[in-house]
Amino acid sequence: MHPPGQPLEFNAWRVRAPALLTIGMPELRTDWLTGRTVFVAETRAERPYEFGNIATVDLEHDRPLGNQPSCPFCPGQEHLTPASVYEMAGDDGKWHIRVVPNKFPAVTAPSDVAILSVSALDPYPVHIRAATREPHALTQAVGAHEVFIESPRHVTRLSALSVPELSNVLQAYAARLQHWRGDGRLGYALVFKNQGALAGASLAHLHSQFIALPTVPVVVNDELSRAEHDWRTLGICAYCRLIEQETLTGDRLIFNRDGFIAFCPHASLQPYETWLLPSRHLASFEETEPEKLNRLAGVVHSLVTRIETVVPTAAYNMLLRTAPWCGDCGQWFHWRIELLPRVTSLAGLELATGIFINPLAPERAASKLRSV
Amino acid sequence: MHPPGQPLEFNAWRVRAPALLTIGMPELRTDWLTGRTVFVAETRAERPYEFGNIATVDLEHDRPLGNQPSCPFCPGQEHLTPASVYEMAGDDGKWHIRVVPNKFPAVTAPSDVAILSVSALDPYPVHIRAATREPHALTQAVGAHEVFIESPRHVTRLSALSVPELSNVLQAYAARLQHWRGDGRLGYALVFKNQGALAGASLAHLHSQFIALPTVPVVVNDELSRAEHDWRTLGICAYCRLIEQETLTGDRLIFNRDGFIAFCPHASLQPYETWLLPSRHLASFEETEPEKLNRLAGVVHSLVTRIETVVPTAAYNMLLRTAPWCGDCGQWFHWRIELLPRVTSLAGLELATGIFINPLAPERAASKLRSV
Repeated sequence: MHPPGQPLEFNAWRVRAPALLTIGMPELRTDWLTGRTVFVAETRAERPYEFGNIATVDLEHDRPLGNQPSCPFCPGQEHLTPASVYEMAGDDGKWHIRVVPNKFPAVTAPSDVAILSVSALDPYPVHIRAATREPHALTQAVGAHEVFIESPRHVTRLSALSVPELSNVLQAYAARLQHWRGDGRLGYALVFKNQGALAGASLAHLHSQFIALPTVPVVVNDELSRAEHDWRTLGICAYCRLIEQETLTGDRLIFNRDGFIAFCPHASLQPYETWLLPSRHLASFEETEPEKLNRLAGVVHSLVTRIETVVPTAAYNMLLRTAPWCGDCGQWFHWRIELLPRVTSLAGLELATGIFINPLAPERAASKLRSV
Repeated sequence: MHPPGQPLEFNAWRVRAPALLTIGMPELRTDWLTGRTVFVAETRAERPYEFGNIATVDLEHDRPLGNQPSCPFCPGQEHLTPASVYEMAGDDGKWHIRVVPNKFPAVTAPSDVAILSVSALDPYPVHIRAATREPHALTQAVGAHEVFIESPRHVTRLSALSVPELSNVLQAYAARLQHWRGDGRLGYALVFKNQGALAGASLAHLHSQFIALPTVPVVVNDELSRAEHDWRTLGICAYCRLIEQETLTGDRLIFNRDGFIAFCPHASLQPYETWLLPSRHLASFEETEPEKLNRLAGVVHSLVTRIETVVPTAAYNMLLRTAPWCGDCGQWFHWRIELLPRVTSLAGLELATGIFINPLAPERAASKLRSV
């Protein structure tokens, strides 16, 4: 019928649309006019939502009220999740970290569908739009969506892990990035943690997620283009330059130790947003040496503990941005971790214009995080 | 010293930065590399936050628990807000709608500072960056930020207004848009409502906000560029084309009545997102005839009631997008209202990549909203 990954023509799409409305494989919808990209993944509506109404969440302790006798991420409940694709066992022979495919994925694994063309995430090509007069595109959403269960203990905060445990988590991130990079069919990956209901978590048991997609999302690609421009103009990595400047200026710096720098970015989106980068240029997180991951674990632990001390009730997102696998950005990209406390909900202005309002200057935030 | 509105040079900025850290006028910070635009507005940290910890909000009734004896938006408490810049009085001579400057603005009124150049919101010019090696920009945040107090009654939901009351609210929107458009110093405006704590509201008493800025935000400008391209290529307004198509297809249509069309957009960001547009081409909301605003009030009331019936506990954002005042987009822009229920928090994937996950197909959402 229709080659997967190619935009459907207007008529084909109209005929096909009703069939897609049965709960099934996730769709990738783009809107050329507004520039939107959305995964419509109806199976996700079936997810267990442990927090119930968000209003009943005990944010003080960041855990749902009442008992959770059947947490799907606790030992003994492995039958409630798909089989592990990666495990790290302790001396006791039991798993300490499990990685499983997301039971309610936003994307369909590439093994389950024909391989998409690399244009799958591109905005709908103009010449096709002009021919069909169809401003929308709809294809199958393809990629990998996995969950890292980061401890067999039912802990809910990253700071509850010891530094060696956190080091194992970082090694698991690197392992899954290496796996999918080696697979060769996907071009971009993100590791992210939603800690707490306000940050988008649906289960409290400490976990993070991994998503890999065929191509680079538009907003990420925009940043890459600017970084490339900068590198081609000035001959050095823009992030290395940023590190140099934040070190010189110093008023947004949190610390610079063990080969890593942490600071609150100049245009912090929210109070206490923190960036963490390796001081020496490295584009790909997954190429970090194991010994350096150990040091990174200590650094992340310190940072998370500082944030949780200053904003005890905060939910937050952690984003690990590594170099995309498609394209060659090794010289102008520089991996980083972003920690974004979620003190307030994003409101109408942010959604409409992309402009954030931050009620705390990052220089003041950094000063508080330094003094912990 | 330094002309306002021009990017500060590296050294000037370093020298000046500490002075900016006193709580004072809001700053506009941009980051050329990530493309971020942020208003750092520290006075906003002093806002009353009626909902307390978001976890204690009674979302079922969308009002804070306990009494609110000193709601600053209730009659008799006018001394708690700045003086009105616009009022609409009833037959009883008392105000039915008040518009006041935001007491905790994200921007400084243009009367309080020298007029900015129109480049104030532009990404930092490349040639200046290359010369100064400064990836950041920091200027004063300039604009208008007002609050519409939409009823003297302490109601918390738009559906609590009668259709005539809602019509007055729409006329107040048009009046403030006309006022600032006539002022001539600002180029872009947005009216938005954050209803409920999850949508970013800090006070429950029904209100919305108006923000006007010197130039068009980047993401809005991107959409305008695509719309202009479409108009120049095909000779008709892209939004008129969209209306035609949604009417033909029909499966995302909610209703088409009284000169307005409502549908769930193809790439809906979240369940039950709804767009409302005038069926006949009109770029500027504020040019809508009063009689048509009366009809629009009935249409909006019906739409909001449907959404509140299908998602009774939902907070939502309402965005009113009218044509920017700078530039000439009258032929290729088309005003619209977006209603975005906030069922879940935005999570790490959305923040990192701009890609949303929507667990409900808009065709299914529209079907439910039609059947109310």
